[in-house]
Amino acid sequence: MGLVVQKFGGTSVANIEKIKNVANKAIREKNSGHDVLVVLSAMAGETNRLIDLAHSAADSPDEREYDSLISTGEQVTITLLSIVLNSMGYRSRSFLGFQIRILTDNAYKKARISLIDTDAIQKELRKGTIVVVAGFQGVDEDNNITTLGRGGSDTSAVALAAALNAERCDIYTDVDGVYTTDPNICAKARRLDKISYDEMLEMAMTGAKVLQPRSVEMAKKYDVPVYVKSTFSDEGGTLVTKEDQEMEREVLSGITYDRDQAKITVVHIPDKPGIAANLFMPLSERNISVDMIIQNASTQGYTDLTFTVSKKDMKEAQKIVEATAKEIGAKKVEVDDEVARISIIGVGMVSHSGVAAKMFKTMADESINIMMISTSEIKISCVIQRKYTELAVMVLHDAFHLEKKNK
Amino acid sequence: MGLVVQKFGGTSVANIEKIKNVANKAIREKNSGHDVLVVLSAMAGETNRLIDLAHSAADSPDEREYDSLISTGEQVTITLLSIVLNSMGYRSRSFLGFQIRILTDNAYKKARISLIDTDAIQKELRKGTIVVVAGFQGVDEDNNITTLGRGGSDTSAVALAAALNAERCDIYTDVDGVYTTDPNICAKARRLDKISYDEMLEMAMTGAKVLQPRSVEMAKKYDVPVYVKSTFSDEGGTLVTKEDQEMEREVLSGITYDRDQAKITVVHIPDKPGIAANLFMPLSERNISVDMIIQNASTQGYTDLTFTVSKKDMKEAQKIVEATAKEIGAKKVEVDDEVARISIIGVGMVSHSGVAAKMFKTMADESINIMMISTSEIKISCVIQRKYTELAVMVLHDAFHLEKKNK
Repeated sequence: MGLVVQKFGGTSVANIEKIKNVANKAIREKNSGHDVLVVLSAMAGETNRLIDLAHSAADSPDEREYDSLISTGEQVTITLLSIVLNSMGYRSRSFLGFQIRILTDNAYKKARISLIDTDAIQKELRKGTIVVVAGFQGVDEDNNITTLGRGGSDTSAVALAAALNAERCDIYTDVDGVYTTDPNICAKARRLDKISYDEMLEMAMTGAKVLQPRSVEMAKKYDVPVYVKSTFSDEGGTLVTKEDQEMEREVLSGITYDRDQAKITVVHIPDKPGIAANLFMPLSERNISVDMIIQNASTQGYTDLTFTVSKKDMKEAQKIVEATAKEIGAKKVEVDDEVARISIIGVGMVSHSGVAAKMFKTMADESINIMMISTSEIKISCVIQRKYTELAVMVLHDAFHLEKKNK
Repeated sequence: MGLVVQKFGGTSVANIEKIKNVANKAIREKNSGHDVLVVLSAMAGETNRLIDLAHSAADSPDEREYDSLISTGEQVTITLLSIVLNSMGYRSRSFLGFQIRILTDNAYKKARISLIDTDAIQKELRKGTIVVVAGFQGVDEDNNITTLGRGGSDTSAVALAAALNAERCDIYTDVDGVYTTDPNICAKARRLDKISYDEMLEMAMTGAKVLQPRSVEMAKKYDVPVYVKSTFSDEGGTLVTKEDQEMEREVLSGITYDRDQAKITVVHIPDKPGIAANLFMPLSERNISVDMIIQNASTQGYTDLTFTVSKKDMKEAQKIVEATAKEIGAKKVEVDDEVARISIIGVGMVSHSGVAAKMFKTMADESINIMMISTSEIKISCVIQRKYTELAVMVLHDAFHLEKKNK
């Protein structure tokens, strides 16, 4: 039997009792005959505590030092788990990013893994060791410690599974799988047994918090089967894997939402080449991501341009855009931070006609006004007033019968 | 001007306010024209918190994992100090053991530094960077994290000062220097302006807690001038340096005591060659250090042997010795854990006769019974009943006039 990579998040290692529970899960897998590699996050709350410490030291903490500081949380959990495993009679060794080494670029706070040296780990696995690895961290070529961004431990786990050619990667979390939508706002939400990489990626990008998008991209690229499971129950689980015919029979896999959106409209712009570049370059220079962009058809040499940003970036974006609007001779800039984005996702969409029309009609029947629309092959997103978020999720879930699986 | 190494202990970096105070001390030295390298301990209490965590995970935590766990405390303080320094406009970079690298043997929990690669630090110093280094930690040849034992940050600081050929090494602590004895039990204790390496070493070995003995050995070996200073005041300070004539004029430099002693006597041993080896080999195999040893003259083929161990080791030592005593045909084993060791230290002792006699007479005048005596060139130690510890320190301090400096 091959290698199984298990990843546990912060709530699964929040204290020693929970770490002992994790040890038992690792041992069970080991006793079943697999090699086992465990990837851990920091204890729940610990990374936030460290971030607060950094910000109490300086308003804009130096990024190199910041990454080295917040990477200590995982060092605590992996060593504690190894201590527990050794005391239970199972040889275990913890590994930090530099000890493996997990090489990244040097984009602090959002580094990308470029290479994983598997020698040290392979050597331990051959001895029967349960290997425990710090998630979220790596080192750049000069041995500076880097971190992979929020949820980065998912990416660490999938990257290690890929590099070590693991049989599968189990992501343990506090929910028991991926749901058709957020069960907290829609009681009819159903757990999916299986979902394709592409659907999972769209769901992660549009609001589902269960997996970091980059981990899904990587799982797809290296074809790593990923199971999302509950730490606290043996029931359930969702397999994220390659598309198959079964998936295509389903029209939709899920509905996601993002309440943290804001909409900016630049009104009455003289329509000349280069306007979009003029508007968006200064935003990207300040690291403000623009999501949906709509430019209406030009009438009499003038056009309007609307786009969305994260709510947290709105104030800064508004200031930048107002300056540009003045330069390019636009009439005014309007902002609306009371909006949300609703997305429906499904590989079946491609072969089922009328999905978009049904989405629009369902919302129209509830008098929910659609302000913006964007589509991809397997996703349709609409911007609506924020106050209708829950209503929209519920009526769409009903309309597409997501509560039951197609036969 | 050359390099100054500054070392700050746990109470000096206990919170962000105190870390900012440390930053100011580093900046002042930097602004005076020196290159500056700062070595930090973990926040006061943090290492103990981590040790407790380890012991809540297992009764006997795996030592490799234990060292990696408790080394995180320094990672937090060095990155916070670097964040503060950078935000104040001074370029700063923190370095962990592996980033430098500080190479040690792999004796976890009490590793010894074998080599320091100075390239990375030198490169930063040339850029004018204030370099901040994690005390207490290193890595072995296989990149396992090791720690140097209690007080190990002193050793880190002196070792770095030696490797980088620093002008001096300033050890900042919560007292303002080295005293003739513990000011908490003797109000007349006087701060020394200067003390020799050998005297400091004897004082550290016999109970003075101000410096880790190994750091003093290393300072002596590489002739690093060490200043013991207060973090919270600019007054005072003690220079630990090579012996000079001024020091020799003083009869004594200090009086130390250790209350954590226990005495074991093996009574009526048949006196044959190899008895001491038989007795002490099993103790050293269990890592129990024996301090003073006295064997009385053999009478009629029998002898008694008395030695001291740390109080915490007494129970285990007693069990081992009782087994050996039986084998070698001794009559019985007696233990006494109500003893203390009083030591007087001074390079002047060599040239002043009657120092020992004066010590014994002073204690006799107070009816303090001396149970054991051991001497070195610059030290005399006596084992007495523990309840007389404070009295002995005070009467000896008076008898040798330590409250005033000799002219």
